Amino acid sequence: MSTSCWRTIDAIKDDPNVASFTFRASSRWQEGTRNVGEIGRFVHAGQEDQTRDERFRLDSDEPPVLLGNNRGPNAVELLLQALGFCYAVGYVANAAARGIQVTRMEYDVEGDVDVRTFLGLTGPRAGFTCRSPTRATADTGIADGRHTEGAGSGVRARR
Amino acid sequence: MSTSCWRTIDAIKDDPNVASFTFRASSRWQEGTRNVGEIGRFVHAGQEDQTRDERFRLDSDEPPVLLGNNRGPNAVELLLQALGFCYAVGYVANAAARGIQVTRMEYDVEGDVDVRTFLGLTGPRAGFTCRSPTRATADTGIADGRHTEGAGSGVRARR
Repeated sequence: MSTSCWRTIDAIKDDPNVASFTFRASSRWQEGTRNVGEIGRFVHAGQEDQTRDERFRLDSDEPPVLLGNNRGPNAVELLLQALGFCYAVGYVANAAARGIQVTRMEYDVEGDVDVRTFLGLTGPRAGFTCRSPTRATADTGIADGRHTEGAGSGVRARR
Repeated sequence: MSTSCWRTIDAIKDDPNVASFTFRASSRWQEGTRNVGEIGRFVHAGQEDQTRDERFRLDSDEPPVLLGNNRGPNAVELLLQALGFCYAVGYVANAAARGIQVTRMEYDVEGDVDVRTFLGLTGPRAGFTCRSPTRATADTGIADGRHTEGAGSGVRARR
């Protein structure tokens, strides 16, 4: 991965347009709070990428307490999931660029939300308070090669 | 849905704690840019909700041009998907609260991103520019009951 990573960086240095992407997601409402999403091809450097033959399908719903039937995670849970994936890819790519081989990595992302403002009632800011403890083990060539990361900001290496 | 919606609002008015949620997502790194996510139970009003027997599983990966193998959508695509689901649930709930029965609704969400800053190169702000055309058809009891919405801000009704 390290070599490919540097190759991508070199390609972008030669032509900044290589860094430009347009991603897409579509959503079709089914009933109640249930929606089905699809993610297909994307545009890279002005051209539609041809590597995906099939679209990814995602189900979303609310739990009963939010008027749904648990047919899938809700939007804020997907947002937390996206955040966890984003941390993970960033972490592993940066580790690869430094020659560190990650052997195990887990993220738990938690977010507190108060739904009053969404429902038109007086309440706190309609946003998240997030926490993200990370458990990562990396083969650093050093005896106790564990890395830990705080709430998404920076990397602290515990060795 | 309209009746349940008002019941929830009344319950929150009686006890603001009913509006408080903690959602969670976990992510386990597999190899390269591939991660598997799980979304399980959440906390509502200080108690763990018991309605979900199984956890939702999500696969995430990057496309080859971003050093992956297309085993799933990437984090920014999931973010767009979450945004589409969020719009849809908000739209349908607000319509229900106004007595409008939505019969069909679709969101296409697109986001432009330049990955230079993520890779440590000089580039524009590492954020999205999003567009979200919406196609919604609602049974408003009026002959031509189409509603359209601009890029996520407010609702324009075309009748």
